[in-house]
Amino acid sequence: MKKSIGVGLMGLGTVGGGVFKALSEKDRVVAEAVGCPVVLRKILEQRSVAVEQRLLTKDVRDILTDPEIDIVVEVLGGEHPAVDYIKEALMSGKHVVTANKEVIAKHGAELQAIAKDKGVALQFEASVGGGIPLLLPLQHGLLANEISTIYAIINGTTNYILTRMSQERMGFDAALKKAQELGYAEADPTNDVEGRDATYKLAILASVGFHTTVRPEQVYCEGISRLAEPDFRYAKELGYEIKLLAIAKQAGGVVEARVHPVFIPEDFLLAKVSGVYNAIQVEGDLVGKLIFYGRGAGAQPTSSAIISDVIAIGQSIASGKKVPSVMRRAQPKPVRPILELETRYYLRMTVADQPGVLAQIAKILGDRSISIASVIQKEADMATQTATIVIMTHPAREEFMQRALAEMKRLPAVTEVCNLIRVEE
Amino acid sequence: MKKSIGVGLMGLGTVGGGVFKALSEKDRVVAEAVGCPVVLRKILEQRSVAVEQRLLTKDVRDILTDPEIDIVVEVLGGEHPAVDYIKEALMSGKHVVTANKEVIAKHGAELQAIAKDKGVALQFEASVGGGIPLLLPLQHGLLANEISTIYAIINGTTNYILTRMSQERMGFDAALKKAQELGYAEADPTNDVEGRDATYKLAILASVGFHTTVRPEQVYCEGISRLAEPDFRYAKELGYEIKLLAIAKQAGGVVEARVHPVFIPEDFLLAKVSGVYNAIQVEGDLVGKLIFYGRGAGAQPTSSAIISDVIAIGQSIASGKKVPSVMRRAQPKPVRPILELETRYYLRMTVADQPGVLAQIAKILGDRSISIASVIQKEADMATQTATIVIMTHPAREEFMQRALAEMKRLPAVTEVCNLIRVEE
Repeated sequence: MKKSIGVGLMGLGTVGGGVFKALSEKDRVVAEAVGCPVVLRKILEQRSVAVEQRLLTKDVRDILTDPEIDIVVEVLGGEHPAVDYIKEALMSGKHVVTANKEVIAKHGAELQAIAKDKGVALQFEASVGGGIPLLLPLQHGLLANEISTIYAIINGTTNYILTRMSQERMGFDAALKKAQELGYAEADPTNDVEGRDATYKLAILASVGFHTTVRPEQVYCEGISRLAEPDFRYAKELGYEIKLLAIAKQAGGVVEARVHPVFIPEDFLLAKVSGVYNAIQVEGDLVGKLIFYGRGAGAQPTSSAIISDVIAIGQSIASGKKVPSVMRRAQPKPVRPILELETRYYLRMTVADQPGVLAQIAKILGDRSISIASVIQKEADMATQTATIVIMTHPAREEFMQRALAEMKRLPAVTEVCNLIRVEE
Repeated sequence: MKKSIGVGLMGLGTVGGGVFKALSEKDRVVAEAVGCPVVLRKILEQRSVAVEQRLLTKDVRDILTDPEIDIVVEVLGGEHPAVDYIKEALMSGKHVVTANKEVIAKHGAELQAIAKDKGVALQFEASVGGGIPLLLPLQHGLLANEISTIYAIINGTTNYILTRMSQERMGFDAALKKAQELGYAEADPTNDVEGRDATYKLAILASVGFHTTVRPEQVYCEGISRLAEPDFRYAKELGYEIKLLAIAKQAGGVVEARVHPVFIPEDFLLAKVSGVYNAIQVEGDLVGKLIFYGRGAGAQPTSSAIISDVIAIGQSIASGKKVPSVMRRAQPKPVRPILELETRYYLRMTVADQPGVLAQIAKILGDRSISIASVIQKEADMATQTATIVIMTHPAREEFMQRALAEMKRLPAVTEVCNLIRVEE
């Protein structure tokens, strides 16, 4: 039985600060749960910060070589040097808890192999959905299920922007500015608004949920910056809400993984998730549809997941047990290219206000066997002599849709193909 | 390393049938997750059923004394003889997985003490919320949190009835009949509609979430059979939805636990949970608000939780480890009586259509320091010479409200106090 368990903290930014605070304030709760005290021994931080100076170090070696540090908590963020530090920590026989979605999405399989080889744990609940317990249920409580579908609102920044655009008819730029003012979006919002953040998280969720390895570059990704006010207006008219969904499905051993804006029916619970909240819907063959909802980011929710991971590892160390390998063995599964997707589409375009344009468009779709479910053609704009056409299709193959789109863009009467949005029902 | 793990199944009703089917169909998945095959060795069932006869027994001894049975799955339901069988199984050194909310709510603390003493596991994820992983997150993924509030729509039958009453203006009797036709309510629906089922589940949730022991008789309980069409009409008019909520709170070491119909604001996500679905909202100091949503009953969802519990225990057995005691030590915490509750109230009554009645009612409330937030008085019913008065109060103490109510009932001008419903915001 160990007398105490040592923690080394890498990074003291927003999340690191939260972990530091929670570890200090909750020392009694943590000790009671673990069975012995959990002591923060060193913090890697390059800046000068107002923390007990004996804890601070600028040299990662001080953590990696400290025999009194059992668990390394990595909250530096970004790929490098975080991945190298995690690797070295695992190689040195230290357990690792990380919130780093980029590192786990890109290097999770390799890092897990090292952890397994060294008999240590690598936990990363905080990397997806902040404090919402997601990986724990997928790895344990739902193990009896074959997971068929994951629908995830998993980026708070974009969900906040979409909520403002939908509820207040705000334009994208204004909504983004508002998000930045409130601290929900970074000065450079690219990672969030272009869907990259969601892509990393989906790669992790799909890998864990489907017991395979989905790499982030296998996830098709489209952001929300092309969405405009009319899209929300038509969505409402047609009974839909627009959300940036991270979608993963598996059927017949083939995986599908994509992040893009979608039309979802307004009466779906996911359509009602507003603001910076996250919601992850998982469908399993036994359990049916489950939804997990909560704050997906922020220092406190992320600390909740990190400290819980630390406690779980601490319990194993304190009781002298080998840390269980939580993953079922990963099976290689092919990921289907986006062009093979079959789904319904919403299509909005601006066309010249002249006879026969709709016929030309309908013909292009018909030639590709794309069947039209409904059409809205609104009165023309007198000033520009253009009209708006909105088309909802029946299920069609993405490849054919993209070809039809390219052909439409070449029509002289089509001023602009404004947006193509996939529909999930 | 064991060659195989033996399971004894007690009960082959709806849930037992689901477990039987899932164990047979998922044998490969389960074996892969556990590390060795998990074999169903015996089934206790008094009826004649079309199952391999060599598996069936009518004598519980055949399971309790079989050295090849490591895990007992109890799905008999009801308090007796289930609790006795579980106790004997634990005493014989067998691990137990149960879906039995009544047994766990009433005897959980005692059974866990036996399990701990014998070094075996007692798992009961399936006893609350069907296949929704709830106890796992509370026992592990949220361990770093102090849970302050649990709001749970945790009985599918009543939520189905309330949904029909709210959305279609159905009366209670008609909605109950519909639920019975669809198999969502039993022939004798008392346990569900009077809130007893929810009471058991809340006792379990509060015990696990607050690390204490809340006994079912400490949970204040009121069912939904008094609700009538006008309550739903006024709720809508005032911006609320009516739900049967199981509510547990803790603050300053004191616990509050109650099951009754409530007014909740219509824009709360919980207000949008319709039909037989369950949703459990948990609030922790670090993680903030979380919601878990899914099917709370049925053979398949319940099997999902049971098989996952079997896998977890199987993993421990197969790796030769001691099964971890999942619970933090239970602290005794007092449960506050309902009369000490402070909340807002909705009050609907029928009064004689004559001057001064509202003044009399307002005086009774005022005398008890109960402040009125809003009043709706609808036009009188000519035939009966009565009018309806609906009052929303500001927060008031239950004790004063009950006294005011008793006094109102004695007023000659008050024909009937139709309903008093608490408000949660």
